[in-house]
Amino acid sequence: MPRDPDEIVITTGPIPGSKKTYVTGGKDGALRVPFREVALEASANEPPVRLYDTSGPYTDEDAKIDVYSGLPALRAEWIKARGDVEEYVGRDVMPEDNHRTDGDPRACPEFPVKRPPMRAKPGANVSQMHYAKQGIITAEMEYIAIRENLGRSEFYGDGESFGAEIPEEVTPEFVRDEIARGRAIIPSNINHPETEPMIIGRNFLVKINANIGNSAVSSSVSEEVEKMVWATRWGGDTVMDLSTGKDIHNTREWIIRNSSVPIGTVPIYQALEKVDGVAEDLTWEVFRDTLIEQCEQGVDYFTIHAGVRLAYIPMTAKRVTGIVSRGGSIMAKWCLAHHQESFLYTHFEDICKLMKQYDVSFSLGDGLRPGCNADANDEAQFAELRTLGELTKIAWKHDVQVMIEGPGHVPMHKIKVNMEEQLKHCHEAPFYTLGPLVTDTAPGYDHITSAIGAAMIGWYGTAMLCYVTPKEHLGLPNRKDVKDGVITYKIAAHAADLAKGHPGARLWDDALSRARFDFRWRDQFKLAMDPETAEDFHDQTLPAEGAKVAHFCSMCGPKFCSMQITQEIREFAAKGMSEMSEKFKEEGSEIYQPAEKVAAEIAKTDQTATGDD
Amino acid sequence: MPRDPDEIVITTGPIPGSKKTYVTGGKDGALRVPFREVALEASANEPPVRLYDTSGPYTDEDAKIDVYSGLPALRAEWIKARGDVEEYVGRDVMPEDNHRTDGDPRACPEFPVKRPPMRAKPGANVSQMHYAKQGIITAEMEYIAIRENLGRSEFYGDGESFGAEIPEEVTPEFVRDEIARGRAIIPSNINHPETEPMIIGRNFLVKINANIGNSAVSSSVSEEVEKMVWATRWGGDTVMDLSTGKDIHNTREWIIRNSSVPIGTVPIYQALEKVDGVAEDLTWEVFRDTLIEQCEQGVDYFTIHAGVRLAYIPMTAKRVTGIVSRGGSIMAKWCLAHHQESFLYTHFEDICKLMKQYDVSFSLGDGLRPGCNADANDEAQFAELRTLGELTKIAWKHDVQVMIEGPGHVPMHKIKVNMEEQLKHCHEAPFYTLGPLVTDTAPGYDHITSAIGAAMIGWYGTAMLCYVTPKEHLGLPNRKDVKDGVITYKIAAHAADLAKGHPGARLWDDALSRARFDFRWRDQFKLAMDPETAEDFHDQTLPAEGAKVAHFCSMCGPKFCSMQITQEIREFAAKGMSEMSEKFKEEGSEIYQPAEKVAAEIAKTDQTATGDD
Repeated sequence: MPRDPDEIVITTGPIPGSKKTYVTGGKDGALRVPFREVALEASANEPPVRLYDTSGPYTDEDAKIDVYSGLPALRAEWIKARGDVEEYVGRDVMPEDNHRTDGDPRACPEFPVKRPPMRAKPGANVSQMHYAKQGIITAEMEYIAIRENLGRSEFYGDGESFGAEIPEEVTPEFVRDEIARGRAIIPSNINHPETEPMIIGRNFLVKINANIGNSAVSSSVSEEVEKMVWATRWGGDTVMDLSTGKDIHNTREWIIRNSSVPIGTVPIYQALEKVDGVAEDLTWEVFRDTLIEQCEQGVDYFTIHAGVRLAYIPMTAKRVTGIVSRGGSIMAKWCLAHHQESFLYTHFEDICKLMKQYDVSFSLGDGLRPGCNADANDEAQFAELRTLGELTKIAWKHDVQVMIEGPGHVPMHKIKVNMEEQLKHCHEAPFYTLGPLVTDTAPGYDHITSAIGAAMIGWYGTAMLCYVTPKEHLGLPNRKDVKDGVITYKIAAHAADLAKGHPGARLWDDALSRARFDFRWRDQFKLAMDPETAEDFHDQTLPAEGAKVAHFCSMCGPKFCSMQITQEIREFAAKGMSEMSEKFKEEGSEIYQPAEKVAAEIAKTDQTATGDD
Repeated sequence: MPRDPDEIVITTGPIPGSKKTYVTGGKDGALRVPFREVALEASANEPPVRLYDTSGPYTDEDAKIDVYSGLPALRAEWIKARGDVEEYVGRDVMPEDNHRTDGDPRACPEFPVKRPPMRAKPGANVSQMHYAKQGIITAEMEYIAIRENLGRSEFYGDGESFGAEIPEEVTPEFVRDEIARGRAIIPSNINHPETEPMIIGRNFLVKINANIGNSAVSSSVSEEVEKMVWATRWGGDTVMDLSTGKDIHNTREWIIRNSSVPIGTVPIYQALEKVDGVAEDLTWEVFRDTLIEQCEQGVDYFTIHAGVRLAYIPMTAKRVTGIVSRGGSIMAKWCLAHHQESFLYTHFEDICKLMKQYDVSFSLGDGLRPGCNADANDEAQFAELRTLGELTKIAWKHDVQVMIEGPGHVPMHKIKVNMEEQLKHCHEAPFYTLGPLVTDTAPGYDHITSAIGAAMIGWYGTAMLCYVTPKEHLGLPNRKDVKDGVITYKIAAHAADLAKGHPGARLWDDALSRARFDFRWRDQFKLAMDPETAEDFHDQTLPAEGAKVAHFCSMCGPKFCSMQITQEIREFAAKGMSEMSEKFKEEGSEIYQPAEKVAAEIAKTDQTATGDD
């Protein structure tokens, strides 16, 4: 495990063909909302295309990146200005936080900069939901409104949204209202002021989460920080740090201080390390201490498996793959060993009271989610879902923001009912699903088996999709796997936006399609989700620089290209249409008839082809 | 371009962990139907798993492969035994068939073995549909019945089939009836007796096609033969040879003689080469000659764009990407230049009369399919679809088998209506779709953008999915791209089978899920769609041989594995259940209550968690 800070190498600089741009806005014009801007070739005669940008300052050529200081605290002034927080002396970092003995030379170093934590003043509640319910539009909400509109003035969409209420234009007031109603969340711990505000909700762009984290088996802090930067470079909207080995506390500190996206965790993982991995030895006190530790560090959302109730555990005994959620199985083991409801369930209000002091959001974990198609939609899964709905109401009583985690393995015909049940029982709190994987037969390709389900459930209404990498079920993702997972999930999320009819989503597709039709190869690469791969694949067949301006591609070659032929047809049509129309009018040719008339004739005709013999 | 036959290297031998097995059957027990059989570890205590196998003799350890002789003519005796065919002196191969001048030393060599072609005796019709309509069950149909049942005795399925009528067990009579009704096709040119019979229809397993072929830009005959073997090794059910450069005739001969799967082509591509690439110069005579050439070689299905009618062409003028089908754009150009309906349309019955002499099936091409999301489901596309429906009826009048090609770029919310319109207007003839791609924004990942749409439209009723490789829109697929495309489409097809409730489809998933839960790592690899990648990915993190029998994986490590914890829970439950049940009965514990009772209680309860302060 590299200990030398010099070994931390971070990917910076713009994505090829794009540059960072900022749209200013907000009440005082002080908000600077980032976008990935793609300028097209002059021949396109089109304005630059603006794309949603999750990559933070790392892709800004003008930004000074220093991993050892962390990112600028973008939200610090906003938080302080609200006047309801106080700095305090936080909890001491203890050796067990990193699962090390004191002075262990192998330990990951502490993050160099220390900042005292903040919390709500006594009696205050600093959650975005609390402000929203009071009618307050925060800077975070204003920022998000600009961000969700993609800096565009043109909007159209013709999707099927299954009851989502996506507005033509997102206003700050719309954001506030959605937060107040619990239909969206802004994960934004006051101790993570480095975040660029983002929103998770059915009436906004579909988001994706990328998981990173070391494990007992491998990986180091420098790898994990770079994985976070790398995942957000390609489109990760949030990152979950699922570390389970040593150095959990220090690794997380490095990640959070350098992350412009919200960071989620599963606190029970760290709590378990503190009791040497013996689930039965977990206590509310250890867990609570871990929550405080992570609240103070700035974790933005906690996965908490409070829905694993004692009575549901036997429902899993006859499953093909039992309980596959790590958190779920830990809690199930605890419940069985103690013959009690879990402390997550019995202390749920205590947890709410803690989280509202920092504005940490719940991601209510589906500890009993199915681990294979055979177990999908069973009684254990849906029993837990209803409990998560009950817990949602309790959290909302405390104005704590909530999203609900959803299942990982579901065949296509059983996906929609998951969304419907979630909406019904969880009161429209945002759904956050893993995949789902639509078949269990393709280990090594589970980014794909799951992207199919993810696109569908995103369309049906899921607000955030948790990515799956090609290594799922097999090993730990490396850099390539993380990128493959992120791009695959960006595809699923964007496909869902298109199908929901998100106004503005299709502008991206259309810009790329026009570039394709015009043989603007460089514009195609620049507009691609992954410009590097697009250009590399093109160049594998036609590496010559001239091929990038050629009016053909390697699939058909110069003489045979359908797009080229169509362009000739179009030119022919444009030039010849009126002239030809005149000429053939008397001859009774039908070629230039109005399209509606042609369509009508087709509808009524029974005319078929006739052979000539 | 390699000319030396020694350079042709073919991948042979079983897929790791699988072996070729044959199920015998048929009226005289003479049919030997191949399967990929996976024997599991003894600890599984399960019979071997049998999977559908498209790979032909190449994966049979006992088969003698000689690319220079071609495969054994499995169906030759069946065809002759029907007594309705005759050998004849075929058309001479001409230099223009390969687009070469006579004696060009660069030309690809002819295939070493020559066999005179066969055709129907005068007045006879040798199509499977013709036999089926007469109540005849052919050997091909019997073979297919065994193949589609996957050699299994256990069946279950709980899908939503949208009106498909999938039987619990496929009988030869069911196959015959589906063929007679036109709801399925068996592509089986009598001059391609090397095929292992397979069926394409909504009430059977969803199939996939892999495209190969050289182009004006690159690739050679040896590459193409190996691509065909490679594509079928991983699951390609049919292969289309889309060659467009030189040596089309000879390349195709090498492919067909060595292919155990049906081969499809787009004959207009070769016809265009014969007129030096000038679409306007195409004539019915050149096209007809090309059809005869390919009928004699043994092409099993022809994509023919006979639905591109003159009146529809102006409907495409305002599209974002016009006409993107190569065949469609060639015909559109021809129609505009001549101001006539195309010869494909006017000579459609002539084409039928030719094809029924060889049992070549139609794949009625969608020349006006949308090339981007913006153009999806427009009037040009649907006008052509209705014409394809009319042509289907004409083909059926001649007992010529038909499938209908479907669109390539469609956002998710517009997919289902494509299937519905196709069923309605094309009288349940099998649908064969390209993708569809659900977004245009990810060149380099279009195997994934399209697999999402392919899985969905497969579920809705598409019978065969045309694969898309990662190189789509960018370049020519190499070996890795072909495999990526095939595996991705096997995932989509299998996901569709599961969702449709194909009886038997889930047995594969369940076998793999049980292996996963039991930590039978080797069984997981062997059962995977791609065992090599699964094992490789596992070994990247845990290369030690011992890790393959370890009861944990690299995601969680030895102490933290959720599956391991669940197994402990299950053991605990199994051991302790009755004992504990007794013990806790008096204490009022609810943990061992019957699951139904628990579920009922959840439904009625309003009980929520309570905090302890």
